[in-house]
Amino acid sequence: MRKECIVLYETLKTELDEGVLTLTLNRPDKMNAYTVKMNEELLHAYREADSNDKVRVIVVTGSGRAFCAGMDLSEGGGTFASEDTQEEYRDIGGQVSVQVYEMKKPLIAAINGAAVGIGLTMTLPMDIRIIKKGAKIGFVFGRRGIGPEAASGWFLPRLVGVGKALEWTLTGRYIATEEALVAGLVQYESEDPLEKALEIARDITANTAATSNGFTRQLMWKMLGASHPYESHLIESRFLHWAGNNGDANEGIQSFIEKRPAFFPLTTSDLPDFFDK
Amino acid sequence: MRKECIVLYETLKTELDEGVLTLTLNRPDKMNAYTVKMNEELLHAYREADSNDKVRVIVVTGSGRAFCAGMDLSEGGGTFASEDTQEEYRDIGGQVSVQVYEMKKPLIAAINGAAVGIGLTMTLPMDIRIIKKGAKIGFVFGRRGIGPEAASGWFLPRLVGVGKALEWTLTGRYIATEEALVAGLVQYESEDPLEKALEIARDITANTAATSNGFTRQLMWKMLGASHPYESHLIESRFLHWAGNNGDANEGIQSFIEKRPAFFPLTTSDLPDFFDK
Amino acid sequence: MRKECIVLYETLKTELDEGVLTLTLNRPDKMNAYTVKMNEELLHAYREADSNDKVRVIVVTGSGRAFCAGMDLSEGGGTFASEDTQEEYRDIGGQVSVQVYEMKKPLIAAINGAAVGIGLTMTLPMDIRIIKKGAKIGFVFGRRGIGPEAASGWFLPRLVGVGKALEWTLTGRYIATEEALVAGLVQYESEDPLEKALEIARDITANTAATSNGFTRQLMWKMLGASHPYESHLIESRFLHWAGNNGDANEGIQSFIEKRPAFFPLTTSDLPDFFDK
Repeated sequence: MRKECIVLYETLKTELDEGVLTLTLNRPDKMNAYTVKMNEELLHAYREADSNDKVRVIVVTGSGRAFCAGMDLSEGGGTFASEDTQEEYRDIGGQVSVQVYEMKKPLIAAINGAAVGIGLTMTLPMDIRIIKKGAKIGFVFGRRGIGPEAASGWFLPRLVGVGKALEWTLTGRYIATEEALVAGLVQYESEDPLEKALEIARDITANTAATSNGFTRQLMWKMLGASHPYESHLIESRFLHWAGNNGDANEGIQSFIEKRPAFFPLTTSDLPDFFDK
Repeated sequence: MRKECIVLYETLKTELDEGVLTLTLNRPDKMNAYTVKMNEELLHAYREADSNDKVRVIVVTGSGRAFCAGMDLSEGGGTFASEDTQEEYRDIGGQVSVQVYEMKKPLIAAINGAAVGIGLTMTLPMDIRIIKKGAKIGFVFGRRGIGPEAASGWFLPRLVGVGKALEWTLTGRYIATEEALVAGLVQYESEDPLEKALEIARDITANTAATSNGFTRQLMWKMLGASHPYESHLIESRFLHWAGNNGDANEGIQSFIEKRPAFFPLTTSDLPDFFDK
Repeated sequence: MRKECIVLYETLKTELDEGVLTLTLNRPDKMNAYTVKMNEELLHAYREADSNDKVRVIVVTGSGRAFCAGMDLSEGGGTFASEDTQEEYRDIGGQVSVQVYEMKKPLIAAINGAAVGIGLTMTLPMDIRIIKKGAKIGFVFGRRGIGPEAASGWFLPRLVGVGKALEWTLTGRYIATEEALVAGLVQYESEDPLEKALEIARDITANTAATSNGFTRQLMWKMLGASHPYESHLIESRFLHWAGNNGDANEGIQSFIEKRPAFFPLTTSDLPDFFDK
């Protein structure tokens, strides 16, 4: 069993197993509450994972019973007070979301328990969300006198429709996991979200091309901002031209014709940037 | 019981009770059919409500058995004929929709009965829609030789996905309320939509900050037009910086830590415009 | 029974019956696999249909047991290899999708069996999709080392939400037709998709104005790219001004008042281009 630990973090555990990197939020005595340190370490871990060809899929989960109980409020009422000017100030959750949006590896959130505030919004830019049946989740910002963050104003309505997005954020109420599933906030409810996430991750790693997935996740997210399908047509054409003349497509089609598993030769390091204009 | 009547209208009744303004379309003998006068009065009532700090949430409903049976067709086949030039002409329903889009108060539609044509499209820019089980609803424009209005070309696909939006508007058929619920056109089916609306309105008024909600509804609607999550990140950062240094966030967090109800000190009049560029 | 065959194609059958044009993908011994020839013929058939006032609605289906098994892979691993430069190369599926996006006639896909790869993405720019219960469908591109095409990077997330779009394209797995229905990828599951499609087509033809539908389908698709509801308000106003001073609105309202079927006098040839800026 090939396992590998990439780097030691204070607030995260990492484990790489057959192309699947599991990142575990690791402050279990604090319900993995979010801190500036955790934010820095997530930014670092994601950056490393995205440039490491050994990493094919990233799974994010929490240590202990919670996924992430939201921002650490141990500083009390002044938690969000800042000495930065308004022009300088940047929401830390949004920094992570914008970075995830640009990544070339599929990300799966295994929401193993409570996910509140940033504990929930941090999962929105990921590609697949799996939730523990009955977990306590909510966009509670309005009840704390603050507002949606982690770029959730952009991500949430695109995942669940603006109707659910408005109702959930304006009331700040807890959301039943069954309701989250039907609305499309999560793709699966499970008694064991991590096991389900690893199963999907292994399926992706075994059966799809890293180049295809690196392109596909960027395409699906970025074309949400395109005003005309022609933009997608042009970018898809660029990728299809590149892929069609390279080894992954050849292997994908040949293996299909020969009814055997595919062994794709390329990695995301081989992938040009098709979104640069 | 503090109740207050803001102004007398011909086609609307208004009632303000503990921060919840109920606007009732009031032509019950005409199934509250929409007229130019009703349009003017809605524009006025919404403008007043948005600038009145005593109004926290707006509920819109209909008098009698219908919500709104659509445009008043008592002028017959020439109802939509206009002597304006094409450049001058503006759809009256769209004027209301664009105004609602800009508002800082949550709006809830209590669709107590039939809602057809503009009777239905007028609710799309509101934040939460609750429908009477079995009410007759439809986007019937194609069957009358006209087209979608009230900016529904923008709102409808963002609420229910473009598939349902196309099927409903191209066929012009009536829509079962159960289908409307599953598609996300409405958030609740209820035997008593007004009571359910007031319940949600009171929950919002009691438990969330007016500043949070004023920002949140604008964020969710306006970021639908943003081409990149970074735009949302920048605006969220501006609000979070402002909120984090003000009284509502302090009270929201302290009350949470102390496990007591919050009493937020600010109003939407205190809210800067975070969307001005 | 008035039936009419418009033109003879190699890969398509066409039949026009009371305003409903049925286009049948017609390579049944190859499961209607997609070829360059089929692409050219589809482009031609759609162009003719859009400018022919006798055609009110277009239904697309497949001959035999499959709808379309995807790209014809008889050239093996080099199927997508091209001698064009990257700047010249254009995905053939995307050419069709962009053309369908601009059309003024409602299109209905009767997915009578397997629809894989381009067999599925070619239906996304159509307005209504009806699927044979249990049909084999999937966005399998990642398993072949290629990527989403036919402008599906733009269409798919707008039909089913970005969550389903990402999961389906990143895993490349087959999708149960029940799941496709709930997600909004298709609007109906049916034992006989062609019969259901014809039923809807006849309802549209009998009860709605061609001008209304020509405008409505363009509005719903194109406003997905609008950054503000005001854009939709302006375009809807232009159409409403035009329609309100023309015969279709007069007939639509009069027939409604008189409780009789409407006979709309205009055709899509009468329709100005409201989307030219």
